[in-house]
Amino acid sequence: MFWKLSKFKKKLLPGIAVISMMVLCCFSLTAFADDIPTVASNAAAIAEKGIALDTVWTLIAGMLVMLMQAGFAMVETGFTRAKNACNIMMKNLMDFSIGSIAYWAIGFGIMFGAGNMLFGTSGFFLNDTGETFASLSWSTVPLSCKYFFQMVFAATAATIVSGAMAERTKFSGYLIFSVVISALIYPIVGHWIWGGGWLAEIGMWDFAGSTVVHSTGAWIALTGAIVLGPRLGKYNKDGSSNAIPGHSLVFASLGVFLLWFGWYGFNPGSTMGAVTDIAHIAVTTTLAASAASIAAMFTAWGMFKKPDISMALNGALAGLVGITAGCAFVSAGSAIIIGIVAGILVVCAVVFIDKTLHVDDPVGAISVHGVCGAWGTIAVGLFAQDVFCPGTTGNGLLFGGGVKLLVSQIAGVASVFAWCMVTGFILFNVIKNTIGLRVTKEEELRGLDIDEHGMEAYSGFQIFSNQ
Amino acid sequence: MFWKLSKFKKKLLPGIAVISMMVLCCFSLTAFADDIPTVASNAAAIAEKGIALDTVWTLIAGMLVMLMQAGFAMVETGFTRAKNACNIMMKNLMDFSIGSIAYWAIGFGIMFGAGNMLFGTSGFFLNDTGETFASLSWSTVPLSCKYFFQMVFAATAATIVSGAMAERTKFSGYLIFSVVISALIYPIVGHWIWGGGWLAEIGMWDFAGSTVVHSTGAWIALTGAIVLGPRLGKYNKDGSSNAIPGHSLVFASLGVFLLWFGWYGFNPGSTMGAVTDIAHIAVTTTLAASAASIAAMFTAWGMFKKPDISMALNGALAGLVGITAGCAFVSAGSAIIIGIVAGILVVCAVVFIDKTLHVDDPVGAISVHGVCGAWGTIAVGLFAQDVFCPGTTGNGLLFGGGVKLLVSQIAGVASVFAWCMVTGFILFNVIKNTIGLRVTKEEELRGLDIDEHGMEAYSGFQIFSNQ
Amino acid sequence: MFWKLSKFKKKLLPGIAVISMMVLCCFSLTAFADDIPTVASNAAAIAEKGIALDTVWTLIAGMLVMLMQAGFAMVETGFTRAKNACNIMMKNLMDFSIGSIAYWAIGFGIMFGAGNMLFGTSGFFLNDTGETFASLSWSTVPLSCKYFFQMVFAATAATIVSGAMAERTKFSGYLIFSVVISALIYPIVGHWIWGGGWLAEIGMWDFAGSTVVHSTGAWIALTGAIVLGPRLGKYNKDGSSNAIPGHSLVFASLGVFLLWFGWYGFNPGSTMGAVTDIAHIAVTTTLAASAASIAAMFTAWGMFKKPDISMALNGALAGLVGITAGCAFVSAGSAIIIGIVAGILVVCAVVFIDKTLHVDDPVGAISVHGVCGAWGTIAVGLFAQDVFCPGTTGNGLLFGGGVKLLVSQIAGVASVFAWCMVTGFILFNVIKNTIGLRVTKEEELRGLDIDEHGMEAYSGFQIFSNQ
Repeated sequence: MFWKLSKFKKKLLPGIAVISMMVLCCFSLTAFADDIPTVASNAAAIAEKGIALDTVWTLIAGMLVMLMQAGFAMVETGFTRAKNACNIMMKNLMDFSIGSIAYWAIGFGIMFGAGNMLFGTSGFFLNDTGETFASLSWSTVPLSCKYFFQMVFAATAATIVSGAMAERTKFSGYLIFSVVISALIYPIVGHWIWGGGWLAEIGMWDFAGSTVVHSTGAWIALTGAIVLGPRLGKYNKDGSSNAIPGHSLVFASLGVFLLWFGWYGFNPGSTMGAVTDIAHIAVTTTLAASAASIAAMFTAWGMFKKPDISMALNGALAGLVGITAGCAFVSAGSAIIIGIVAGILVVCAVVFIDKTLHVDDPVGAISVHGVCGAWGTIAVGLFAQDVFCPGTTGNGLLFGGGVKLLVSQIAGVASVFAWCMVTGFILFNVIKNTIGLRVTKEEELRGLDIDEHGMEAYSGFQIFSNQ
Repeated sequence: MFWKLSKFKKKLLPGIAVISMMVLCCFSLTAFADDIPTVASNAAAIAEKGIALDTVWTLIAGMLVMLMQAGFAMVETGFTRAKNACNIMMKNLMDFSIGSIAYWAIGFGIMFGAGNMLFGTSGFFLNDTGETFASLSWSTVPLSCKYFFQMVFAATAATIVSGAMAERTKFSGYLIFSVVISALIYPIVGHWIWGGGWLAEIGMWDFAGSTVVHSTGAWIALTGAIVLGPRLGKYNKDGSSNAIPGHSLVFASLGVFLLWFGWYGFNPGSTMGAVTDIAHIAVTTTLAASAASIAAMFTAWGMFKKPDISMALNGALAGLVGITAGCAFVSAGSAIIIGIVAGILVVCAVVFIDKTLHVDDPVGAISVHGVCGAWGTIAVGLFAQDVFCPGTTGNGLLFGGGVKLLVSQIAGVASVFAWCMVTGFILFNVIKNTIGLRVTKEEELRGLDIDEHGMEAYSGFQIFSNQ
Repeated sequence: MFWKLSKFKKKLLPGIAVISMMVLCCFSLTAFADDIPTVASNAAAIAEKGIALDTVWTLIAGMLVMLMQAGFAMVETGFTRAKNACNIMMKNLMDFSIGSIAYWAIGFGIMFGAGNMLFGTSGFFLNDTGETFASLSWSTVPLSCKYFFQMVFAATAATIVSGAMAERTKFSGYLIFSVVISALIYPIVGHWIWGGGWLAEIGMWDFAGSTVVHSTGAWIALTGAIVLGPRLGKYNKDGSSNAIPGHSLVFASLGVFLLWFGWYGFNPGSTMGAVTDIAHIAVTTTLAASAASIAAMFTAWGMFKKPDISMALNGALAGLVGITAGCAFVSAGSAIIIGIVAGILVVCAVVFIDKTLHVDDPVGAISVHGVCGAWGTIAVGLFAQDVFCPGTTGNGLLFGGGVKLLVSQIAGVASVFAWCMVTGFILFNVIKNTIGLRVTKEEELRGLDIDEHGMEAYSGFQIFSNQ
């Protein structure tokens, strides 16, 4: 939703543009006038403080998003087996490390640099010739702050892939596709929707990235999980599937709390400026996540006769993903409805993907980020109300806005799905047929920690041999 | 302390009220004048930036308090056995999820909505008719920000109960009393002290909630622990008690660090605005916690001949709880004294409640939050100095202010204790005699994870069968 | 670098000084004028909001640094054995608790109080007579905020020592040297470089403490590890060394993520004010850490044939330590180079200190904080560019600035090394010959948790007896 927020923000920040142009002249004036304040010097100081405040807010929000890396790592390792814990930590550390550099060198330019309707063709290595990053000119913060905030988003998209492909992916292959996702596949989607590309042009809105970040990561993950195939022992010959329990639901829970905390940077921070709307966004984010975790718990309770904790945890994440697209555009009540649907949906999707599609996704990433990301994006077309961000989405279908917005949202969901499926299949098949995408059967049984990294995660603890 | 801070803040923010009224006229002026800044437009811009800054601060502080949910979860699971770890995570996730929605629908209105001296009768679902939330009008932040900050406090009160009742409470019963606490019992206490109720009227002060949040949670927990009875194997026939060691003191320690971190939102954030006093509050908070953890360590070292880590950890929390009421009203030196007393008190209280009262509190929640919450509230009557927040508490007994403040503080402590004991006993007995409050003996021995949630927390790890 | 930033900040905040002096007069004016804003009242309000914003930023940054205590605790326990986990948690809790009080009473005055070129002689207990803390007058935030931010830095230096001396240090001895480091050894180094002392005078620059904090902690740790001697079983008679694997690489990884997150307070927060440069600092910090973790991984991959996770984790920390001195002074590209060198260096240093020097550093603290801290400080002399903080470092050697800066940096590194080696050896030998520095052989074999603290960390888990 980024680039079009300009209209909205201009209303809130009257005269900032003009005031900024006055900075130079008042600087000289105050110099001559021996630092006695004038109307112009006050206006300049207000503008300067405003930019500093915007920067403080956006930067702190970005830091919270960075902490989500720890959350993803804990969720992923908690839901998988002890013998692969080192590998999972290593992947999460590396996709952030590699991603931040690849996105600095290439990805940010492709996403926000001036170019065409499909991708940016300038702004590599943060090289700004003045008009390069016009798609982000609606935010007052310095370019390095814009990069920082967007970089942690890119890393989020990359790390989602890790979960669905856990416990069987070759580490060297992982490093390579992490670069490609951060530098190319994700930024191109981002350009379409946030960088002034064709989906923005047709009026699709995704405030903080239900589709841009979450669905993109998840659909790539889906292709990866298909190309890889399921873990050994996951499916029986009769087509039934075995549960492979994770080794620490405390880690998984801690991860969810960290992710929920980080989401307060993800969603409210997507204003990239200190406007009071951030409070409403924090509220919709909270209520959707809460409603979704409750809904998922009761859905699982009904289906499996027990309030399953892994479903409740994934429910919270489903609500967070679901509200991400619309957090600034919908009411608190709508947020609760969006959350409830996400919570029910994620349980059904996990079961469907496992039992019916036979795609092995150890942490439920495709259901959480893909299915609920799509739902959240479409929900904008249903629940958006013009009153929240006047001049942006307008009203959704349920608030008298007709189907126009809904159609744009569905078009966005479908085209991003298609893009990720095509590029994902190409990417993973190329890796599979060159350096290899999957570890050997022996390595997988022993655990990736021993063979890929030469160590074990829990030295001293007695762990059952088949785990 | 919230609602009366107005006098104090008005001194700090001269002219804000008048300036705000000028916003409309200067907006039109600048429009006509082609965005050339004027004195009036500058004043309006300053007011707007000030509100944005207040919102950024209050919202971030609330996020830190939300992270305390992770801290509480880690402390509680760390101090209890591996076989109940899923149940504890689930309870902590659910009391936040349920609490945030119940407090949005009902609790916030009861706490801060216009009503009478005992409870609010309006403002449900954040419905504001303009004068509804006059008790919070001293803060400039938007209503959604006030709700967000207060909601995370309500969730804290609810989650405290979880710890004292750990390892034996039926999950369905837990869900029900979580709603009641978040929606009714806690908000009514809050109304008395922060919502313009009768305790505020008689001059009781509780800056960030030693009594409002911590004691309230702990006294309800006390009734819960009594109604439940002790865990199997906790007390012997001769009246002696057995230690039931927790399964991960690393988790418990991590939890304390997260709670300490979150407390920097809890205490300094209770200004609900960006005033420079937040720094002093952070300092008193730090010094009290540090002094208390050292005092608790040496007290335990003297009593048990070893520097017990669980006592040092609870000591840190005791100091944090103890300084919460007075953090803005006392000097750094007084904070250290308050902390030392809290650190000694918590060790004695843990031993007294266990060995003498025979109330089984697995994590020491009653001692930490109840006893030290009461101490901290009373300490305001001793150590407050008018110089820190002029026009609020005045001086306490030790600084020449006489006994008036002290008496008000004690009245507050006593009446909240009585309220929680009465409502807590009613609540838990109703649940006990309807759907049931405690799991069966077999379930408790096997662990709540298996029977209540159908899973175990640490799949693959060898864990002794009696744990 | 703190005290000299004044020149730089004065340029950014024109007229603040003058504006502040006008506060009193405009307060009375507005009072008479019935709160109608004037140019002077606007200027005063802008100054006041600016200070509030600076305080919010600096305080939040300090909170993030405080959370690094949790990060250090998790890294240290993760890299060591389960039988010492309680002891490590306890040490980390206590060095923060003791350190915050000792630094409040004594350390802060020695570091920033008026005095001579070697140490401050005033300002104990935050006692400020107006000119006492002139060395920090460049920041607008209140004194309590300055103390808070500096206190968490002091605690960081103290906690670094803990890691290198893990698994064999007597707890009572640990408490004593923690006080001495926080109150005396660290603050004196701090005075030299940040408090207006002799290293500042000769033009040495260390923006956020590669030398002040990290090397100081590490060189003291080096003397401690030498005086203590290696852990039992670490070195064989033939001079070869045995790896002693840590008990949870997940904890170690979580710790690194928390440290990385906290470093965004450490480095950008060292502006102690809300300037837009914080974004550039966050970017250099990120890129250096990312580059270093990748470089360390590939270095280890080359040397040991596997991408070792402990090396990658220490690589990330090495990059963070390495960029700390120069984060505000160097370009993004230079940050990557500094990070790559740090990542290679830390792997070589770990091997050299272990295999060649035979100093037993269980977590690699000396390599990470000492060697890479020295590298980062020297790197300022190579990569600094005047354009980033005009009027501070000037250009380094590689940007045409000649060797002057480089020589100052090396002088700083060398003198801090000498100071820490001398005071560290005296300190640890005094403790060794009085109350004792090391536990008995039996205690060490059983684990420090049992004998020092009377408990075990993981009750219920089956842990191999030799661990």
